[in-house]
Formats: sequence, C-alpha cells, structure tokens
Amino acid sequence: MNMKKRNLYLSNTPVDEAQNRYLSALKSVLKPQVEEIPVADSLHRITHHAVFAKYCSPLYNAAAMDGIAVCSDTTKGAREGAPVILHPQQDFLVVDTGDPIKPPYDAVIMAEDLTELEDGTVSIMAPAAPWQHVRPIGEDIVAGEMLLPSFHKIRPIDIGVLLSGGITHISVLKQPTVAIFPTGTEIIEPEQEPKEGDIIESNSRMFQAMVQEHSGIPTRFSPIADDYEALKTAIAKAVETFDMVIVNAGSSAGTEDYTVHILRELGEVLIHGVAIKPGKPVILAIVNNKPVIGLPGYPVSAYINFENFVIPVLQLLTGETSCAVNQVEAVLSKRLVSSLKHREYVRVKVGKVEDKLVASPLARGAGAAMSLVRADGFCVIPQNCEGIEAGEPVQVALYRDLQEIDHTVVAIGSHDLILDVISDLMPTLFPQNFLSSTHLGSMGGLMALKRGEAHIAPTHLLDEETGVYNIAYLKKLFHRPMALIKGVNRVQGILVQKGNPLHIQGIPDLTRVQYINRQRGAGTRVLLDYLLKQEKISPGQIQGYQREAATHMAVAAAIQGGSADAGMGILSAANALGLDFIPVGNEEYDFALPVEYLELEQVQHFLSVLKSDAFRKKVQALGGYGLEQTGTILYVDEV
Amino acid sequence: MNMKKRNLYLSNTPVDEAQNRYLSALKSVLKPQVEEIPVADSLHRITHHAVFAKYCSPLYNAAAMDGIAVCSDTTKGAREGAPVILHPQQDFLVVDTGDPIKPPYDAVIMAEDLTELEDGTVSIMAPAAPWQHVRPIGEDIVAGEMLLPSFHKIRPIDIGVLLSGGITHISVLKQPTVAIFPTGTEIIEPEQEPKEGDIIESNSRMFQAMVQEHSGIPTRFSPIADDYEALKTAIAKAVETFDMVIVNAGSSAGTEDYTVHILRELGEVLIHGVAIKPGKPVILAIVNNKPVIGLPGYPVSAYINFENFVIPVLQLLTGETSCAVNQVEAVLSKRLVSSLKHREYVRVKVGKVEDKLVASPLARGAGAAMSLVRADGFCVIPQNCEGIEAGEPVQVALYRDLQEIDHTVVAIGSHDLILDVISDLMPTLFPQNFLSSTHLGSMGGLMALKRGEAHIAPTHLLDEETGVYNIAYLKKLFHRPMALIKGVNRVQGILVQKGNPLHIQGIPDLTRVQYINRQRGAGTRVLLDYLLKQEKISPGQIQGYQREAATHMAVAAAIQGGSADAGMGILSAANALGLDFIPVGNEEYDFALPVEYLELEQVQHFLSVLKSDAFRKKVQALGGYGLEQTGTILYVDEV
Repeated sequence: MNMKKRNLYLSNTPVDEAQNRYLSALKSVLKPQVEEIPVADSLHRITHHAVFAKYCSPLYNAAAMDGIAVCSDTTKGAREGAPVILHPQQDFLVVDTGDPIKPPYDAVIMAEDLTELEDGTVSIMAPAAPWQHVRPIGEDIVAGEMLLPSFHKIRPIDIGVLLSGGITHISVLKQPTVAIFPTGTEIIEPEQEPKEGDIIESNSRMFQAMVQEHSGIPTRFSPIADDYEALKTAIAKAVETFDMVIVNAGSSAGTEDYTVHILRELGEVLIHGVAIKPGKPVILAIVNNKPVIGLPGYPVSAYINFENFVIPVLQLLTGETSCAVNQVEAVLSKRLVSSLKHREYVRVKVGKVEDKLVASPLARGAGAAMSLVRADGFCVIPQNCEGIEAGEPVQVALYRDLQEIDHTVVAIGSHDLILDVISDLMPTLFPQNFLSSTHLGSMGGLMALKRGEAHIAPTHLLDEETGVYNIAYLKKLFHRPMALIKGVNRVQGILVQKGNPLHIQGIPDLTRVQYINRQRGAGTRVLLDYLLKQEKISPGQIQGYQREAATHMAVAAAIQGGSADAGMGILSAANALGLDFIPVGNEEYDFALPVEYLELEQVQHFLSVLKSDAFRKKVQALGGYGLEQTGTILYVDEV
Repeated sequence: MNMKKRNLYLSNTPVDEAQNRYLSALKSVLKPQVEEIPVADSLHRITHHAVFAKYCSPLYNAAAMDGIAVCSDTTKGAREGAPVILHPQQDFLVVDTGDPIKPPYDAVIMAEDLTELEDGTVSIMAPAAPWQHVRPIGEDIVAGEMLLPSFHKIRPIDIGVLLSGGITHISVLKQPTVAIFPTGTEIIEPEQEPKEGDIIESNSRMFQAMVQEHSGIPTRFSPIADDYEALKTAIAKAVETFDMVIVNAGSSAGTEDYTVHILRELGEVLIHGVAIKPGKPVILAIVNNKPVIGLPGYPVSAYINFENFVIPVLQLLTGETSCAVNQVEAVLSKRLVSSLKHREYVRVKVGKVEDKLVASPLARGAGAAMSLVRADGFCVIPQNCEGIEAGEPVQVALYRDLQEIDHTVVAIGSHDLILDVISDLMPTLFPQNFLSSTHLGSMGGLMALKRGEAHIAPTHLLDEETGVYNIAYLKKLFHRPMALIKGVNRVQGILVQKGNPLHIQGIPDLTRVQYINRQRGAGTRVLLDYLLKQEKISPGQIQGYQREAATHMAVAAAIQGGSADAGMGILSAANALGLDFIPVGNEEYDFALPVEYLELEQVQHFLSVLKSDAFRKKVQALGGYGLEQTGTILYVDEV
C-alpha cells in the first residue's frame, strides 16, 4: 500500500474562474487556422473573412415569366376592343423564364396574356409597361456586394448564393483535430468479454461524438494502461500533431492518477480541481501551446465537464459561437440539498401539467449515466446556495424541444417494466407523443399527482382492510373526481438466486437470509409489511430490511450480484436477470389520474397504446402479467 | 415558335392537401430500410427497435471512492477518542474508485477519513455503515433494462450508455440515398465562365446540403440539357438504385419543361402545381415505388418547396421527426398584400425594439435568394387571406436564435456600403452582437424609427432651407429627445458607364440620357430633386425618372448592364462595379436614434465599431468617404 502517492489536494476553483483563466490563457497562444475549400463542400463550416460577390445575379436583364419579349413602345394603346397585333421576330421574341432580354426589347408579356393567331402573330389587349416582368441585372445579387460576413456558419442557402455570385472556393476556419486518450489498467474495449474488476471503456466514444457535434475531428486512441512513461510519451507526441488533447481518466488524486504530474512536466497546468459537481477532478493544461484537458472517469462527471471545459475550447478553435440554450422556468418537484463547496448540475425530467412546467430531479450520482439519457434538461444549483426547496421555481436548460414536452404524458409512481414497453410504443404508434416515467413508488406517485406534478400515477397499493387495490387510497388522498385506468394483474414474489440455493419457500424464510428491501412508499414494500404482519414477523427480524433499492430491477441486480439473497419483486424482473421466483400473490397495477386528464390528447394516446395488440404481445412476452381488464376505466367518486 | 407545347394548366392544390395526398401514397409503398452498424459510429442515426442492456453497470459492487474496503462489522464503535485500528489484508484492502468490493468486505472508508500509522495499520474515528461508498451492481444500468426506445435519434451520451451496457452493434434506419438532377440547356457549372444567357447552376448544391442536413446521402449528377430522352433515361435508371429522386428545374409549363411528361410516362404524377408562393410549379410523383419530385428553378421557390415537400419525404425515409420550429409573435412593419390563390411564405428580418419583436418583410420575388440569406425567419400568409396590415401581429418561424435577435442593432433607412462593413465587424469585435440593416431610404428609416421598429435610422436628408443635413428632419418628425451619431461624409455623384461614352458632365446632361432613379424617400432622390430645381429642370424632362432602384448598388448594376446610362449614387458603388463617376456634391450620412437607445449594449458596440481602426481602414479602402466626425454624437432637442 502506498497512500502517500495520492495527490490529495485538488484545488476548488469556481467554475467561471476556471473557464475564464483557461480561455484567456489559450486566446493568447492560439491562432485561427484557415483553409480554402470548394463552396460545394462548405456546409456548416465557418467563414474566415467576409465574402463578396464576383458576378451579378441575374447576370443580365432576364425574363421573369414565360412569354414574349417586346418593346414597350410598340404595345402602347392596346386595350380590350382595340388589340395590338405583334409580328414574330419583328415585334417580339418568344422567351422562357430566365432568357436574356436585350435591346430593343425592354418588357415581357406573360404567355397567359396573349392570344396566338393562325398566322403566327399574337394579339394583346393591354400595353406593356417598360421593364415589366424583367428581372434587372443584379436584382438579387450585385457584383461586389457582401454575401456573407466573417465568422458565419455556412447554411445550404449560403452555398446556393455563393455559387450564384461566382464564388466557387472559400476560406474557412480549419476543423480542429482532437486526440482522445482513454487510460486505465482496469478498462477494456466494448468488444471484450468483461471479467470482475473490468470497466467497459465508453467515455472516449462519447467524447468522439461530442467533438464531432462541435465540428472537431476526433481521433480516438487505444486505451493506455496506468503507466507513467507510456502516457507521457503518448501525450508528448499528440501535442505535436493534434490541435487539442483529451485524457480520460486519471485526472483525480488516486494512487494511479498520473496525468497531472505528466502535464506539469510537459507544460503548464493552469487548473487542477474545479468546484463543480459532478466532476471536481478536472485538469486544464497547456502543452506546446495546445489545450490538454484531463477529465474524470465517471460518465456523468466526464459529460458535464466536457460541456463546461472542452466545448468552450472547441468553440475557440472552430470559431463557432455557442448555440443558444433553451432556458425555461419550471417548478421543482423535490427538495434539492447541495453544498456550498461547489456548483451542482442536476439532471431533471421536465413535464407540463396543467400549463405548469415541473422539473423532477433524477439520480444525482456521478456514475448515473442513465440520468443523462433520461434527462429532459438540467438545472444548476449555484455554489453559494445550500439547496432549493420543492415548489420553488428553477431555471432548466432543456435538452429537448418544449414542443415534445407538451406532448408527453408524465407518469410518476411505481415502477414496472411495462412502462418501458409503453414509452417505446408511444412515439412509434403516435409520432411526437411520449411517456416520461419517474420511479418514486406508488405513494410517491400519488403525492406527486396531488401536487400537480404528474398526469398519471402508476400504483399498486393494497388496502389492508378491504383487500382491494388502489381505490381506497384515491378516496382517502384526493378531494377531486379521480379515475383509475386498469393496468395489469401481476404476480409478486420473492426473487432468489438461480437454483434457489438457500431453499427459500416463502415469507418466513426471509428471517434467515440477507434481504434487500424497496424504498418506503413502494407498493412492494407495503405488500411485504402486510405479509410480515400476517406471519407475525417484525421488520427487525429481517437482515437488510433497511437496505433500499429503487426498482424491481435494482433488487434483481443485487441478488444476481450476490450482495443479497432475496428480495420481493415481480416475475418479469426475475426473468430479465435469470433469477428464480417464488410467487406470493397477485396484485393490481393501475394508473391513477384526475378525471379531467382523460381528455388530454396524450393521455388518450396512452390509453390507445394500452389497448393495442403491440402492447399485449410485448407484455405477454415478459411473462407474469394478466391483461384481462387492461385499459378499462373506473371512476372513483369523491368522498 | 411553338407555344402550343406549353403545359399551361398547372393545378392549384392547397399546400396541406398536396402534402397529405403525397405522403399517404408514399406511406403505402415505402418500407423502412434497416442496417446494423457499430455503436461507435451511430451518432445521430435513428434506432429501429428498442435497445436493452446486455450487462449491468457497474458490472459488480464497486468502490465509489478512493480509500479502503472494510467489513462494516469490524468498524463498529469507532469514534473520536476511541478509534478502531484496522490491519492491512486482514481488516482492509486499499481500493481506488471503481475497484470491485467482494465478500467479506461490504463498505468503503474514504482516504480522507483515515489516519495512516507507521506500522501500516490505519486508524478510523467513525464506524462504516454497511454498503457505504459502494456502488451496487446495476446501480446505473440493469441488464435487460431498456436503454433506448425505437425511433430514437442517437446522441453522444446514448453511445456511452449503449457501450457500457454491452451493446456494440445496433440496428438503425438506413440513410436514404437521393439522386439530384440539375437540368436545363442554359445552365452552366459554377466553375465555368458565364456568357450572356447562361445561368450558374447552384440549386443542386443547395439541395445536396439540405439533404445532408436531413440525414440523407445526396448524389448530385452533372447537368442534363433539356433533352426528353436523356432526362427520361437518367430518371428511369436513378429510381432503380436511389431511394429518392429530385429533378430541377423544368417542373413548370414552359416550352422545354419535360419533367412532368416523363414522370407520367414512367410512373404516377400525383400533384402538378401547388397553391404556394413562391413555388407553384411542383411535381410530386411516384416512380418504381420511389418518390420523385420536380422542383422549380427560381432559388427561393426551390428552397421553399424543398422545405415543404422534400423534407417531409426525407423524414418519412429517415425516421426523423420534424425539428421543432421556433415560432414567435412579431408585429408586421409593412403591409403585406397577398392573393387568395395561394399560401405565401414571406421572408422577414426580425428585430427587437423596446421589448417588441418587429418583422420587416424582405424582397418577395422567387428569384431573391439573398432574401433567404438575410432572413431571420418567415411568416406565412394563409391561402384564404388577402393580406396583413402593418402593425398587426404575425407568427414568425425563426431561422435564428431569439438570443441573437436580442443582441442585434436594427437599422432601417438609407443604404450605404459601410453598413456591410459594420455588420461584418460587429460579431467579429463583439461576438454574438449583430447589425441587421434594411434599406427603405432615409425617410422610410425615420418613419420606421418613429413607429418603434428600428433602433437607428441611417439617413442623409438635406434641408433645402438651411442646407444642413438630417437635423431639421429629426426636429420636425420626432417629439422625443433624439440623437445623431455622425457617420461619414460622402461624395454623391452621377454614375456612368466606364469611359463616360455619353460625355455626361453634370445634372443638365441627364435630360438627354436614360436615367435610373432611386425610390421615393431616398436621400439620393431628395438630392436629385434639389439639384434639378436649382437647374430649373422638371422631372418630366428626365427619361427614366419613374424607374426606381432600391440601392446604390442596384443603380450601378443597371448602368453596368446597359439598361440605363446614368444614375445618382455614391463613389463606392461606382468603384465596386468599375463605373465612371461625376461628383456633384458632398453629403452627411449619419445615424439617427432616440437618445435613450444610446444606453443599449448593442448600440454601444455599434459605436465602438464606428470608432475602431478596423472600420476606418476598410472604409478608406472603399474610397469616397470622409471620416472626420465619425462616432461623434449630436443631441437634437425637442422642438
């Protein structure tokens, strides 16, 4: 053991200060790189200088209509009853749109306004005004006119106009080349079969895509083990040929985090450690006048630090100005506590319920990559803020279009795999309609519904007195007309390792094994408590009763991983991970909602999905579900 | 002459009906094409099916911190004053973040919470809770969990998560291949030197870029002359190998518009002629079960029809859902008259003046490609509407970010080439700040300023009584404190063809040549009228007095093109097109604005640009300008 090697002391530089110091330093060493390319290949490139037209467009006075070119003088006096007859070649020329109009002709008469006569002459009923239906030379573009300014991102229409103005080649900023080095002895390539202790290297591929999205040209290198000399050689070589270098991970203060030492040796480390969460261990360095950035390994840290520190540098290199972020105000659904030590980026789901945007925080861990996949946006808790209360307004930077959010059914409540099936089928059957589901347990869902943060709450709450599911809770909790869309009947049971090595037969056996429970308010936990009471077992007798997992799948994963022996859950979760399953009862998993939400278009689509053949087929394939009543609506009267 | 060949009769199908009929017909013949590709290369591709994780992430219970792995049991009772001493190997293992935590260990203590002792043992002051700082297997991703739904556009974070979940290959929709055929005997390639009657072919390159932006793979063919058999052979061959075919132009009813006949012969023409402006002559056909679209040749028609008819088909093929359009409400600055015969797409500049968005219509011609380059968005005049009055609200679909519009100085008024210089320098010197200028003449600009549609009005209006420029007009027109930012002194004169073949010496000579005038309200026209009065010449004595051009450059172009002999304008316009110039006087070209606008950040930047060295240098290079007072501010008191 050699804990002394750890670089325990990262600085805690505020985000803005870190960005400003680094960008200022870079601005003084970086020069824009320019190249000349064909206009036809210049889509989305950035102009270096203003571009001026070489030719006029049109290049000459041109017919604006199909018809005949005439001298306006010869048409004078034409009117209904006193037509003027024009003779071919002598008085007029047939022209198509775009044909040149040359002296003596100075006007065009549209084909629709002519009467052709047998002898080849034409008769007109109205005079032609000088220059009518003639596009004058340079009407659209005059030679010498500025077509595009400097530092302009070229669009398709710009390509058309440049070519029309006689410009075939254009000076644009070079796309920066970015070397990406995945590092770490424990990482493996995605194609390799993982063994315990291996981590599948995926950040570098994500970075590649992010570099591409910001107009850089990424080169991803094969993983480098935690070997000081190998990494140093690779970085030293890369700063010779690339415009920018990214090293991931090894940016922190662990025993094998060499990056900062290497960068200090090769160049200058401006920042090591930023007051940002997730993501504190960031290295911002300059080596050989090139930006070299060390990013942390946790995927969310890596992503958020890339957005905050790599993208501004890429923009400096590409000349692209930052894309406007769609910032909206939403009401926070859950209290967020944060530390004064850092600025925190919290991923949120955003839903629109009764004209109010609601932001529901997702998992905040640095490793929770799925939180970024699921996120509709993020909100920032400033460094000088200890947190934000539920119900307070927050600014959310949206990843999605507001329009999509408008067409999304917001479901908060109990988790079941059928929610995945529905959210997959929604946009397939009803383009641009979505289901967004957050898993807070049955009771958590009903409370969210009550606060106006969700459209529907998936719920399976057993009323101990009546033995009836869900309805009693709706009567008790709500003081408005509610409805229950019947979902599925499903089997609850005990999930155990394959082959059931501990011979678990039922609830009483749970006292002799390591259990993993669900969170408070989850219907499955309510059911367990009910069953324990029936068996006269106290929670204290269950080892692991306090250990909580948030979903059926998380319970299944813990058992498959061996850190727990048993947990309650549904058959489909056991099937998904190849576990054994001891049924303990049937329950009703339904969707609660205020009656008036049944009218919403997206809720109607949700209902249609529930009743669709595609849904039935996919749910039957999961196993353990009854679909007899699916889609039926029960109305629950106010008490 | 053979006017009988014209297909005079296009239908006038409403836009929505045309879209619906065509897309419905296509939906019944098109099937999604799928291919399997590496996840690492899948950025922005569209998933075909939902994707489920193969592995958990983390793959095992893993240390969430750098520190030591311990059995929580052995740490019980540790507290300040009564530390627990742990022995290496026996009681703990040193772990870095991400290392597996295996039995008997069930918790991690952070390095920061340890005291290392000389003998290699460590001392702790607090017990470890079971599973503290351990990321449980599957915390982020559980095997079997849905990672991405069907028809999802893959983002960088999705690539990271897919790879972490063990997915290395993915089924995505194929990118459609699109054949683009430029046609026409008169068109030439951009590299060729144009002769009179030639049209530089640029639409196909614009289409290429538009296809790319919508995830298709374009193949642009060399231009095909207006030859029935050649075009027929090319299309027949293309529908064998490509997913879609675009023919441009020849879609109308001219003598050489063969496309519709060919498509009727090869397949089915569903629509020929849509009630849209610009762009009526559109052909929507299906040949060999492939979409074949004929688009008109005018660049704006081509662009707007591409947006309305090609993009929806591309989306059908790619599986991409339409990107949300940023729709805002703005006040129309100028009356728009339209016909009941069609839906019209009017390009507009959008400015924000005193918290009000103002939409100013740009040139409406089908050939006005620069109107699309300059546009900030467009508004739609419905087919059943005869027009919209000035001051009425209109919906504008924005091409630009609202944030950019917020940082834009809106200038409406007289035209001068120095406005191009400023609009080029603004974003260069002040990133994300812009100048938007619309040319309505000096008086038009002052009126726009009065109506609150502009921040500043470039103006050069001579007060005949005092001989002083601009100030008298501000006093007369405005009832609020105004300011005048001094712009440039410039030479006005008569532009004539190179070598001055007609020996024009001054204003009296204008009675014997073809003149081209500026529009009513233009300062240059005011000056001409003043000079004519001095010479006792009436406007009726000037041939072409009624022929109006909107800018100095348009006047210069008409003279260069030979359709006029002389026109009044500025030296820089003569220089730009190599014309001769007969000076007639100096004038002051300034910027009028309400005093309080001087405070606006973007106006401050505008002032800084005026005073910059870069501006002086570029203006001096144009020639004909005095910069003595540039940037000085005159305050004009209310009367």
